[in-house]
Amino acid sequence: MPNYKLTVAYDGSAYCGYQKQKGRGLPTVQEALESGLSKLAGTQVKVVGAGRTDAGVHARGQVVNFRPVKWAVPENRIVVALNSLLPQDVAAIEAQEVPQQFHAQRDARVKTYSYTIYNRAVPSPFWRLYSLWVPQAVNINLMQQAAAFFQGQHDFASFQAAGRPVKSTVRTIYALDIEYDSPLIRIVVRGDGFLYKMVRTIVGTLLKVGSVHLAPAKIPQIIASRTRHSAGPTAPSQGLCLEKVEY
Amino acid sequence: MPNYKLTVAYDGSAYCGYQKQKGRGLPTVQEALESGLSKLAGTQVKVVGAGRTDAGVHARGQVVNFRPVKWAVPENRIVVALNSLLPQDVAAIEAQEVPQQFHAQRDARVKTYSYTIYNRAVPSPFWRLYSLWVPQAVNINLMQQAAAFFQGQHDFASFQAAGRPVKSTVRTIYALDIEYDSPLIRIVVRGDGFLYKMVRTIVGTLLKVGSVHLAPAKIPQIIASRTRHSAGPTAPSQGLCLEKVEY
Repeated sequence: MPNYKLTVAYDGSAYCGYQKQKGRGLPTVQEALESGLSKLAGTQVKVVGAGRTDAGVHARGQVVNFRPVKWAVPENRIVVALNSLLPQDVAAIEAQEVPQQFHAQRDARVKTYSYTIYNRAVPSPFWRLYSLWVPQAVNINLMQQAAAFFQGQHDFASFQAAGRPVKSTVRTIYALDIEYDSPLIRIVVRGDGFLYKMVRTIVGTLLKVGSVHLAPAKIPQIIASRTRHSAGPTAPSQGLCLEKVEY
Repeated sequence: MPNYKLTVAYDGSAYCGYQKQKGRGLPTVQEALESGLSKLAGTQVKVVGAGRTDAGVHARGQVVNFRPVKWAVPENRIVVALNSLLPQDVAAIEAQEVPQQFHAQRDARVKTYSYTIYNRAVPSPFWRLYSLWVPQAVNINLMQQAAAFFQGQHDFASFQAAGRPVKSTVRTIYALDIEYDSPLIRIVVRGDGFLYKMVRTIVGTLLKVGSVHLAPAKIPQIIASRTRHSAGPTAPSQGLCLEKVEY
């Protein structure tokens, strides 16, 4: 059995998240991929995804792997053949055969997420599914000051939503950058892993800083408190995008 | 009765074009606007639009005017109030009271359209509704050479689709620019008016040049022939966007 690594992009708007949900009958990205790959293989194919993105969350660089029991498509034809079978809101970007032991989830070392804010008094019909609309003025400089405190290794328990218990809540953020290209604010975070809804809670907290309801200097205390209610709200899903997974 | 000029943006994906279609029951942008404005006025409001965009065509700067028989909303509150009543794929951008005789369609002097091409081997889930996906390499330089021949005043009968007869097929194109910001090719055309499907037929002809199936120097002959079949195909609607209307 070969093992393939596949990079995929998707518009998560129409999906109830990446991960297949047993017996729920809801559309998921995993099922869309498995359905396309199964047609291509002529037998049932299961995929393992690097990250379980939530409903409405997008991806430009999600990574999955699959080990088909039967497979006849040459490596350099997989992307084109698969795209002809996938719905238009899911696209295969790159495929390559990898060593047998490669596991898209367990072997992921670094993940990069972006969060897009549309910061203008009037909303945009074009960004409504791919950003959070914030009509009020936002202080980017304060947000950047706050962002610096998140970098490094910390216990991020304050930024974890309930629902997916993990052994350790310690994670390392290698970079947290805030770029402003009016009317878009793009928050890009790169880390060794993220707790459930951690990126969206960091964004919600940064927006509290940007709207001058929280001082940047309070961030270390919020982290140290290890209690979810000390942080800001969870920003909505549609602004979030899984950009890249590194191995 | 006051007369208001309203600039609107919309994602045309879910609409059967801008213009209301009698008794067809199909969703149109005009109806969405009239429905929102009628709620705001507390009486039926009709709008006149500058351009009748086709099904799937978008707008960032469509202009309409309306003369409500009854109206209580101050000018500087119209945009926010209307956006709270409009569907998320239609947005009011700007509103201002204008002289009684202002007519959004008849008084339009200059219109600017953009056409977006997504030029990459793999498709993008995010651009699927806002661009034409062209996976093959395209020669931008040849397209720019061809574009130059369209500028100025010409009889554009070769670029008019059947279905909307007009008195004269002479139009002036002030500028036709092709910008390349990989993987996006953006064709921006500014003119005193456009025939039915003219922009999309110019784009289809430019793409024939870009794929080296037509020499740029052939454009003057195609224009001079005044026959639709001499030009290239009509590019699909989703890449087109009405950017601006000038008065």
